[in-house]
Amino acid sequence: MHMLFSLAAALLASTSIASSAPPRSDLGYDIVEGLTTEVGQRLAGTEAEARAREWAVNRLKALGFANVHVEPFDMPVWVRGVETAEILSSFPQKLTLTALGNSGATTDTGITAEIVAFPSLEALKAAPDAQVRGKIVFVWHRMTATQDGSSYGYFGDIRRSGPAIASKKGAAAILIRSIGTDHHRTPHTGVTGWTNGAAPIPAAALSVPDADQLERVLAHGKPVTIHLVLTPHMTGVHQSGNVVAEVPGREPSAGLVLIGGHLDSWDLGTGAIDDAAGVAITTAAAKRILDGPKPKRTVRLVWFGAEEPGGFGGEAYARTHGTEKHALAAEADFGGDRVWRFRASLADSKSPLLSDLTATLGAIGIGSDTGAAHGGTDVGPMVARGTPVIDLAQDGTRYFDIHHTADDTLDKVDPVQLAQAIDAWTAMLRTIVDTNDPLAPLPPRQEH
Amino acid sequence: MHMLFSLAAALLASTSIASSAPPRSDLGYDIVEGLTTEVGQRLAGTEAEARAREWAVNRLKALGFANVHVEPFDMPVWVRGVETAEILSSFPQKLTLTALGNSGATTDTGITAEIVAFPSLEALKAAPDAQVRGKIVFVWHRMTATQDGSSYGYFGDIRRSGPAIASKKGAAAILIRSIGTDHHRTPHTGVTGWTNGAAPIPAAALSVPDADQLERVLAHGKPVTIHLVLTPHMTGVHQSGNVVAEVPGREPSAGLVLIGGHLDSWDLGTGAIDDAAGVAITTAAAKRILDGPKPKRTVRLVWFGAEEPGGFGGEAYARTHGTEKHALAAEADFGGDRVWRFRASLADSKSPLLSDLTATLGAIGIGSDTGAAHGGTDVGPMVARGTPVIDLAQDGTRYFDIHHTADDTLDKVDPVQLAQAIDAWTAMLRTIVDTNDPLAPLPPRQEH
Repeated sequence: MHMLFSLAAALLASTSIASSAPPRSDLGYDIVEGLTTEVGQRLAGTEAEARAREWAVNRLKALGFANVHVEPFDMPVWVRGVETAEILSSFPQKLTLTALGNSGATTDTGITAEIVAFPSLEALKAAPDAQVRGKIVFVWHRMTATQDGSSYGYFGDIRRSGPAIASKKGAAAILIRSIGTDHHRTPHTGVTGWTNGAAPIPAAALSVPDADQLERVLAHGKPVTIHLVLTPHMTGVHQSGNVVAEVPGREPSAGLVLIGGHLDSWDLGTGAIDDAAGVAITTAAAKRILDGPKPKRTVRLVWFGAEEPGGFGGEAYARTHGTEKHALAAEADFGGDRVWRFRASLADSKSPLLSDLTATLGAIGIGSDTGAAHGGTDVGPMVARGTPVIDLAQDGTRYFDIHHTADDTLDKVDPVQLAQAIDAWTAMLRTIVDTNDPLAPLPPRQEH
Repeated sequence: MHMLFSLAAALLASTSIASSAPPRSDLGYDIVEGLTTEVGQRLAGTEAEARAREWAVNRLKALGFANVHVEPFDMPVWVRGVETAEILSSFPQKLTLTALGNSGATTDTGITAEIVAFPSLEALKAAPDAQVRGKIVFVWHRMTATQDGSSYGYFGDIRRSGPAIASKKGAAAILIRSIGTDHHRTPHTGVTGWTNGAAPIPAAALSVPDADQLERVLAHGKPVTIHLVLTPHMTGVHQSGNVVAEVPGREPSAGLVLIGGHLDSWDLGTGAIDDAAGVAITTAAAKRILDGPKPKRTVRLVWFGAEEPGGFGGEAYARTHGTEKHALAAEADFGGDRVWRFRASLADSKSPLLSDLTATLGAIGIGSDTGAAHGGTDVGPMVARGTPVIDLAQDGTRYFDIHHTADDTLDKVDPVQLAQAIDAWTAMLRTIVDTNDPLAPLPPRQEH
């Protein structure tokens, strides 16, 4: 990969990149490689995530950032157990699946029940309880890849809301087609929620090929019975934490520029695209600010803890820092591929800052768009309080092939695209830290 | 997939395919879909393979083939157990692996030992015993994809021979980088052999990302200790069998045309490309001969059993039928992608049959080549006895991404390419069954 990077960098250096572009470095890729190799998976609230925080503190101090420290918080921790499934009839065969975060458990010997299948969440919602009671619900779908990742909103609701809906109707368990766009035997986990008083039931995602297989088996029209063993459990309340580092600014009263990604990952892969890439992009960009002229505003870089199980790090940050003056928030949590679109939500929608950013990012191939910026789960609580926000949208075409699977490993990170994202973040940050726009707060939002 | 197929078929129908080409049908794809959905994995010598034989007999009879029957034989059966591995130090983390066929076992609680790593089989061979004794050997490599699959010969020897070599040197176990060209967490199994009196030791393949991860961990230069649990075992001698079907010819004395693929699969996937595709291609082509003018020669179609664990079906066929007159042998065991090259090994290297075949296959885009044809594991014993042989080489560029993994599922079969392969086989068969070339035997070969 390094050879590839060097070759590609050499090729790119001879093309149309403006000569004023900041120098490329290996720092971003090195952070992804180090975190995924030396720590690997880092499930929130576990000792692996604690090792990741230690790794982060050491690395951020070595890079010369100021005020490097951990801000601990507590959170409930869920861990995976045994997970197997088998069609008993008709057409007996094993299926590959993985439990959703917060899934309930079967007994150690598992449960056996008939499948009741729905082609959508709407169909499950509309089903009478009697059709579902005592059965294993199976919800399939036809999610396809999108550049902006927007299909995750609609299809992801099957994972987020489907289990609680099935539980309220009396289902014994729920299996969903992985919320993913690949065709590999690597199921996609992700958190689910037991809202409206729904009792936890066993909830798992079949890999896409397995879900399609189950759909074909069901198409024969005979009853399909499944034996399911899922034994995850809650281990209690444990410590997680946010790792904070700063590039000190000249004018503290100008407000903080809050950037970052999340340090925790799901347990199946090594969290390369989700979200070692995000912390690497924001850190490498912040490092360029650190190495340049001292900025007016302080850049606060946060490697958030416990994003995956429900945004605990972002909430903890807002509890601790919500009253400090924040000029801007921006988050990288959409993989390591290139930035293709820029959106901003500022108090002054006619600010010259917007045309500055449009021109600066446009010069490196990134188009501006007038849609609202949202941030993400980690900066969301600050955005909800009215902090202005910028979204540098990364290409999501292949993101949901890999997202939340065992396949989220270093080889999925393209060093050339990662370098482009770091360039984009650097260009954005350089403009923001010194802008004359006061970056006044917006009215608080209901979303997030 | 069916919609894709129909669209693509409609598009192709309007292009340059000769109007004399046989009509396309869904039969090939339907066989792959049925076998992989209604049976799924079908490990040799197990009840799943027995169900697959029953499925095959029913299907072949329904298609109207003559003399459909099973020819049983016995074989030793190996089955997978628990398989886990974990780096204990440095950088503790789990690794994804799968046992090689015929692997020995650890105890139920596993073994813990230090890794000794080699970049090639040659390096392992050259290592003094003292360097290996009591250690877990790790052999990595840099296999890349090839159209003709030839890199499997060299790199595959790490799997075939590496374990016995490590065992003879006193290794506690051996891990290899999967013999594959993908970057997914789906390790590649495959048979190994305990030659020269080597005692079985635990032998497994790490997925490619896991092997690359282990290589990066080792690059830090500290000792790496692994805990390995592998509990496969031999279940004894059980029954497998070949399923035979025929298209009767007008002149039995003209010799049989033997074609087929293998019915068994590894246990991880559903054996779609290995080798439901091969039985589907040969069956769909034979069906076209069956539905056409009665051929001079009888076509004997065999769905061989127990190919994966060591070619037991091919050996059993040759024991039973070795003295019958065979005019030609040809085998499809290289996935479902398109045929790109034609090779023949005939007694008369100047036969007009060769120019007939060259022109016929050339008309549908398949180039002829003067290299020797070899058949494969199943027809190999007949080829070794001197049976003339034709190879219709399928595109192997993505074959070793999928081969022997859990990812060998229906979605990897491209209906358009599968249909092209069926067209190629039909054109070849139509020429062979009626040729005036006597298709005399060659001198027996040593290979195979």
